[in-house]
Amino acid sequence: MRNLKMTIEYDGSRYNGWQKQKQGESTIQYKIENVLSKMTGEDIMVIGCGRTDVGVHAENYIANFHTNCELTVETMLDYLYQFLPEDIVVKSLEDTTERFHARYNVKSKTYVYRINNNKFRNVFNRKYTYHTDEKLNFSEMRNAAEILIGEHDFQSFTNLKPGSKTTVRTINYIHITDVEGNIEIEVNGDGFLLNMVRIIVGTLLEVGSGKLKVMDVEKVLMEKKRAEYGPMAKAKGLCLKEVQY
Amino acid sequence: MRNLKMTIEYDGSRYNGWQKQKQGESTIQYKIENVLSKMTGEDIMVIGCGRTDVGVHAENYIANFHTNCELTVETMLDYLYQFLPEDIVVKSLEDTTERFHARYNVKSKTYVYRINNNKFRNVFNRKYTYHTDEKLNFSEMRNAAEILIGEHDFQSFTNLKPGSKTTVRTINYIHITDVEGNIEIEVNGDGFLLNMVRIIVGTLLEVGSGKLKVMDVEKVLMEKKRAEYGPMAKAKGLCLKEVQY
Repeated sequence: MRNLKMTIEYDGSRYNGWQKQKQGESTIQYKIENVLSKMTGEDIMVIGCGRTDVGVHAENYIANFHTNCELTVETMLDYLYQFLPEDIVVKSLEDTTERFHARYNVKSKTYVYRINNNKFRNVFNRKYTYHTDEKLNFSEMRNAAEILIGEHDFQSFTNLKPGSKTTVRTINYIHITDVEGNIEIEVNGDGFLLNMVRIIVGTLLEVGSGKLKVMDVEKVLMEKKRAEYGPMAKAKGLCLKEVQY
Repeated sequence: MRNLKMTIEYDGSRYNGWQKQKQGESTIQYKIENVLSKMTGEDIMVIGCGRTDVGVHAENYIANFHTNCELTVETMLDYLYQFLPEDIVVKSLEDTTERFHARYNVKSKTYVYRINNNKFRNVFNRKYTYHTDEKLNFSEMRNAAEILIGEHDFQSFTNLKPGSKTTVRTINYIHITDVEGNIEIEVNGDGFLLNMVRIIVGTLLEVGSGKLKVMDVEKVLMEKKRAEYGPMAKAKGLCLKEVQY
């Protein structure tokens, strides 16, 4: 049986996230499984590298699936390109080892959160960028980001209810760049809890606008429970940029 | 009476072009006049720098309007920002001389046509970029573009029916750039006839893909009638970049 690894780009605006929840729901996973099942005549199950929230985008989402179908990868790619909706593109497809698992084998992931910090929204990237004209203090945001680097219990930075599963994760880096008011917050870590990137970004934005102090972020992290600060940043600004295996 | 000059950015995807044709139609002009009329309590007429086709975008469209309204430009800008739809932004507004006329005073205009020449469409710019994976010969396209530079009768490059109005225009430059398959064709001229930029781009694309030879372009130009070659390039790739006064 073949095991195929896919790299997928999608505009998440119209979808209920990656993950299929109930049959027929509009999710990226469902759309892709549907086309693959038609193409192969099999009941294809796609294994994704993780969930993405409703409205979140991806530049290089990784997934894999098993099939007995003997079509070449080129033919499969063309078929997918033709039958997937215009906001989902499978960019590459390759035969991989039997044991490759898109979720279990993830070493780390890179998300990017895009903010337009100019006076007005830009009409051309308005669906992929969060707009705020609040003056942001990047130096304070970088100081706050520093606190989150490394291995921590991120219970304060997730909407996951406290339970039996560990909420310890490692963040490798958070880079904040500003090119003429186009801000990117790039976050790399070994795994992310429910809404974690959006809560981190929401918290950094509150630090940037002065609503929260750098030392408050340390306190919130230590408290290990969801605080009243650090609202989730809007989904549309978030994009899964890369997955490392 | 005040005369106000506006710079407007719009995503033309949803609109029937700039120009109001019949009352209530979904055009950019109609949307802006509507908001300005509510703001001022007057029946505002907006003078645009020219028509743009259905589905064409603008980064810096220029228009002006007269009013007795005494609000500051900042207040007006905020009002427009709040009440215009999210795909139209008035980026700046300034009091100008009584005699300024957004259409009559145009010296030249710059359009940019964007083409994604990679294997697959990019989901994030799919509404603002024409996608083709045909191999293009840029050197031949630049040679063909050279033929169109200068003052010519562009009757072959418009869908305007031959009539009493002159179809002589001057093209100042056509720049073709390619950055990793993201192609931009920038065209600057003193004025453009109906569909002229799109027909020029369509013709250059046929030269690029080898369907048309450079010398054919010269022949078409000389014939002064619309040829069977040079189909209109799709509207969504076209954007009014700047207007010079």
